Amino acid sequence: MAQQADITAMRRAVELAARGLGATSPNPVVGCVITDASGHQVGEGFHRRAGGPHAEIHALRAAGVLARGGTAYVTLEPCNHTGRTGPCAQALIEAGISRVVYAVGDPNPQATGGADTLRAAGIEVSQGLLADEAEAGNIAWLTSVRRGRPFVRWKYAATLDGRIAAADGSSRWISSAESRADVHRLRAEADAVVVGSGTARADDPHLAVRDVEGAVQPLRVVVDTEATAVKPGARVLDEAAPTLIAIAEDAETTLTDVVRLPRAERGLAVPALLDALHARGVRSILLEGGPTLAGAFLAAGAVDQVVGYLAPVLLGAGPNALADAGISTLTEALRLDITETARIGSDLRITATLKGA
Amino acid sequence: MAQQADITAMRRAVELAARGLGATSPNPVVGCVITDASGHQVGEGFHRRAGGPHAEIHALRAAGVLARGGTAYVTLEPCNHTGRTGPCAQALIEAGISRVVYAVGDPNPQATGGADTLRAAGIEVSQGLLADEAEAGNIAWLTSVRRGRPFVRWKYAATLDGRIAAADGSSRWISSAESRADVHRLRAEADAVVVGSGTARADDPHLAVRDVEGAVQPLRVVVDTEATAVKPGARVLDEAAPTLIAIAEDAETTLTDVVRLPRAERGLAVPALLDALHARGVRSILLEGGPTLAGAFLAAGAVDQVVGYLAPVLLGAGPNALADAGISTLTEALRLDITETARIGSDLRITATLKGA
Repeated sequence: MAQQADITAMRRAVELAARGLGATSPNPVVGCVITDASGHQVGEGFHRRAGGPHAEIHALRAAGVLARGGTAYVTLEPCNHTGRTGPCAQALIEAGISRVVYAVGDPNPQATGGADTLRAAGIEVSQGLLADEAEAGNIAWLTSVRRGRPFVRWKYAATLDGRIAAADGSSRWISSAESRADVHRLRAEADAVVVGSGTARADDPHLAVRDVEGAVQPLRVVVDTEATAVKPGARVLDEAAPTLIAIAEDAETTLTDVVRLPRAERGLAVPALLDALHARGVRSILLEGGPTLAGAFLAAGAVDQVVGYLAPVLLGAGPNALADAGISTLTEALRLDITETARIGSDLRITATLKGA
Repeated sequence: MAQQADITAMRRAVELAARGLGATSPNPVVGCVITDASGHQVGEGFHRRAGGPHAEIHALRAAGVLARGGTAYVTLEPCNHTGRTGPCAQALIEAGISRVVYAVGDPNPQATGGADTLRAAGIEVSQGLLADEAEAGNIAWLTSVRRGRPFVRWKYAATLDGRIAAADGSSRWISSAESRADVHRLRAEADAVVVGSGTARADDPHLAVRDVEGAVQPLRVVVDTEATAVKPGARVLDEAAPTLIAIAEDAETTLTDVVRLPRAERGLAVPALLDALHARGVRSILLEGGPTLAGAFLAAGAVDQVVGYLAPVLLGAGPNALADAGISTLTEALRLDITETARIGSDLRITATLKGA
């Protein structure tokens, strides 16, 4: 049975970890809180960016000598390997920490073993406190390690009856201003934002993050199989953020910054796209549709989480949020768990996560 | 500024009122709490069924002489007219009540004037405490009075992408067992449950209330324009609840218990159907679809509230929850307010109410 003080400290560590979302890839987000021997918090920190100090190092620096005899609460098992920074397990030992509480074990075979190293040094180690919350906060990175491809969050905005536009194509605005602002937060949390040629052609979207303080701009990706949707001068080609246009191996283009990928039955091969992005360090993708591309991702088994902004609007006609995903009968449907709901302006945001994701 | 004791008593009255849902039409649901001169609750009651005593009478009987000098909290303005029961305003005066607090004024021209009668007798009267909650609890009856037709609540169960079945028609089960049980509660609250010929043909539904204690069975209504969907032996024709089949004026049938209505461009004229049900004392309708009939109701401006059971499932193909409602552009869309959300089993129930309903 965890003590309330332990829970409070770990919850703070989970909060801290979330501040790194969108800026740490290919590393996980991690938060750390250090309390002294009498249980008072004396340091905290989070992993801010890949190549920078790990959360434990930030927290140990803040705590200084007060860490001696104290407890470190970490959202992820302290690393054991020397990457661009030294191993955190060693730093905790050297600081004289006497107890380490971490939420989630490190699934990365390169980094695991930190708990054993700590125990070998005589430190009391326990795992699992607030594991569900910490997992949820690190779902993108954990999924990318477990599946060997970026985590994919599909975002859509639709009416209660599942339409993303009216019959005549009009769609401004189905969702509220607050929902549209919230999408910028999702973009800021992602390493890449992906749209298809239909969206590029219809909306000429910019796809960069706006009005999110401290945000790292995601890679903007347009899946433009025939290399016909993104033309010179497109908003997505400006300097606000890096951009990658994914086109078919045999497509002709004058654009630079393209990646050529094999074709699938329709469009590009989604697994090849995910591989290409993973190789560029992308660990989380915000898939902003439209319905055709979302259907292709779903058909490829590459939707891990859905964030739907549902507006209290009825249309009765118009395009659906999700197009053909090769599912013809109910037993083949993708089943998720609703993991969060929130009122955003006049809309309802529903987050549903793949079972076992 | 209302006192906490007043709020507590009125909230209880609102709770009591809800117990009458589905059993009081053509009357409203009403709850009443009586406190004595020192503020202790000494009686409570609610309107149980049309023709039976009003809420105030139940509460006054429970309070007896303790009502003298006390306060009556009523969700609706006490009636002033002698219908099947005597006027409640008079009963409150005779019981020696010194203060009446009611939430919502009576919009019914036959019954209004109760507050004036009370004031003329020297009773302190105030209106508006928890008016929003009381209005929401009485929305069906209030809407029926204001619009001169039954209140229509459209219920659907769909996937996150708005599908009510897969491409092959399979739909058992999209929503959870808990959601399906919850629908029986909605049926119990309604005076009539309405489906179209498509649903009747595909599902042979029973439409009666099951497993809701004390429920009054609603009138089961099938809109079967051509009189071809409901055949002798259909489950809806059993003795569990009354049933009405609405058919076109010129349709041929061997069924009894039919109502003949004028045709619309497609199907039956929805306003005529609403008139016919209103004339039978129906003040609230649970519209259980399918998409064609729901579209016709929407096109007729006859959807006041939507209750959607959203299952965390993605299909990408299959019929939509709502079919053509004559809306071709976004500015014509029906806009509602989300008035409640609740987790029901693995699903999310969203209630959205017409603005100003």
